[in-house]
Amino acid sequence: LDAYSPIAVLDSGLGGLTVVNALRKVLPHEDIVYFGDTAHLPYGSKSASTVTGFVRQILSFLRPQQPKHVVIACNTATALVLPHLRGEFQEMSITGVIEPGARAAVAAAGSRQVPVIGVIATEATVRSRAYERALIRRRHMAHILLRPTPLLVPMIEEGRSCDDPIVELALSQYLTAMLQKKINVLVLGCTHYPVLKPIINKLVGKDVVVIDSAEQCAQDVAKRLRTRSLLRPLTTGSLAIDLPPQGRLRTFVTDDPKRFARLATRFLGVEIAEPQWVSPDELFTAGDDAAVALRPTG
Amino acid sequence: LDAYSPIAVLDSGLGGLTVVNALRKVLPHEDIVYFGDTAHLPYGSKSASTVTGFVRQILSFLRPQQPKHVVIACNTATALVLPHLRGEFQEMSITGVIEPGARAAVAAAGSRQVPVIGVIATEATVRSRAYERALIRRRHMAHILLRPTPLLVPMIEEGRSCDDPIVELALSQYLTAMLQKKINVLVLGCTHYPVLKPIINKLVGKDVVVIDSAEQCAQDVAKRLRTRSLLRPLTTGSLAIDLPPQGRLRTFVTDDPKRFARLATRFLGVEIAEPQWVSPDELFTAGDDAAVALRPTG
Repeated sequence: LDAYSPIAVLDSGLGGLTVVNALRKVLPHEDIVYFGDTAHLPYGSKSASTVTGFVRQILSFLRPQQPKHVVIACNTATALVLPHLRGEFQEMSITGVIEPGARAAVAAAGSRQVPVIGVIATEATVRSRAYERALIRRRHMAHILLRPTPLLVPMIEEGRSCDDPIVELALSQYLTAMLQKKINVLVLGCTHYPVLKPIINKLVGKDVVVIDSAEQCAQDVAKRLRTRSLLRPLTTGSLAIDLPPQGRLRTFVTDDPKRFARLATRFLGVEIAEPQWVSPDELFTAGDDAAVALRPTG
Repeated sequence: LDAYSPIAVLDSGLGGLTVVNALRKVLPHEDIVYFGDTAHLPYGSKSASTVTGFVRQILSFLRPQQPKHVVIACNTATALVLPHLRGEFQEMSITGVIEPGARAAVAAAGSRQVPVIGVIATEATVRSRAYERALIRRRHMAHILLRPTPLLVPMIEEGRSCDDPIVELALSQYLTAMLQKKINVLVLGCTHYPVLKPIINKLVGKDVVVIDSAEQCAQDVAKRLRTRSLLRPLTTGSLAIDLPPQGRLRTFVTDDPKRFARLATRFLGVEIAEPQWVSPDELFTAGDDAAVALRPTG
């Protein structure tokens, strides 16, 4: 494990590519390994123990690649599993998307006495109360409003964009109560949502700061790598290295690689090489040493 | 395996309960075993080989219960896996929801020279062309229109009902082209969709016959059991048996049983006993003798 090791990014499917996009802007020369668990998506409507089981297998699969840092680029997985799995994977440096988002939200709330912070997220993320905890820890006096917005991911994955009337109608419904309560900040608590940022910005108006957890997360990773002296070096001694213009992106998926490659363009703006398929057997045996799944509870 | 054996019904999640509902009307005294693969849902956006892997494990799990008949109560699973898995599970009597739906659609088309038949379904069901094949085999001259309607399942699972403006707007969008082409028959090619039948009926108008594949499937199962003399007997010799008012319903799920029980009421109209959770290990090892998963292709 050294500065040339890759950064690993994992997600239930495509949403985490918004984090890859942000990482490539902040750290263009880093190699990235992306894992999209497309056979098991979505995570957002499932229980903590089921999602923990999925992520445990992915982390076990990624371990031999010795990533210098692992980003759980999925708010649901961050909320449901990160606290439990950190202990099991102590040798890996793992962070999620919730803490950076919460930090940015509190910063954006500024000096208001009781800021009103809204969070839109999946059903499971809202249920976990992870955002409340992360926000309140940083800012005791705040009014926090959470809203599960389960239609947004399927709409984005269907290819609907900001000018679709159904997208606008759904967002209006989801945001009504928050706008009535005059939120100051809105956190996009799911890595898919930045795709809809233009229409969200329009609906909330210019007085509400919209926090994109993907962007915040990329900044956070850069800072951590810098602190650990693990940024990919731009020079060796006094010699400037002839770096490739962009680090490599390798992707692994658990369902159809072609479909993933096709939809990925929407998130990255560029085409990607065809991902490598990881079979259920490969994934299942990767986690063989890991703990047994627990019965899900609501 | 005899007339007292249960009927098994499997689905990716909740949708197959519309088939259970229909079965309980047609065959109230039969015991039913329901398997909802809630950890892996939805199937409708996934590849044939991934869905085949899921269903293979479920069939292996159900085999020891010796069901007298197995219904794949999910159009996607029927379309993608039934032809492949029949050979592997030859000792089991397995049918799906597409053939009965196609049969009813052709009957409803009547004596028109070239009937126009519309089918709404998941992305995977549409891609499989299973409905085209089933319809054209029965009626060479027909104009068939298919439309993937991926938002309907998440809308139903979010608890939205027929009077929700988003449901109406999405359905209007999805049905516009079909209504312009003057369909005579509309097949609801997903077992979730009957929940939205009232609004669909309203939108298509009374001249379009709406085919509910769940209902058709239940009729088909009853006929098959009758032919095989496997209907649960109502009398023994000359003695009438004191039958319970309703057969037993046992449910198995792969994710949170409490959440499933809560949502199931919406499909069945009555409360159910808490389902039994099937762990990933149990499911994985159930299929140990089965073939290895194949790489998914689009």
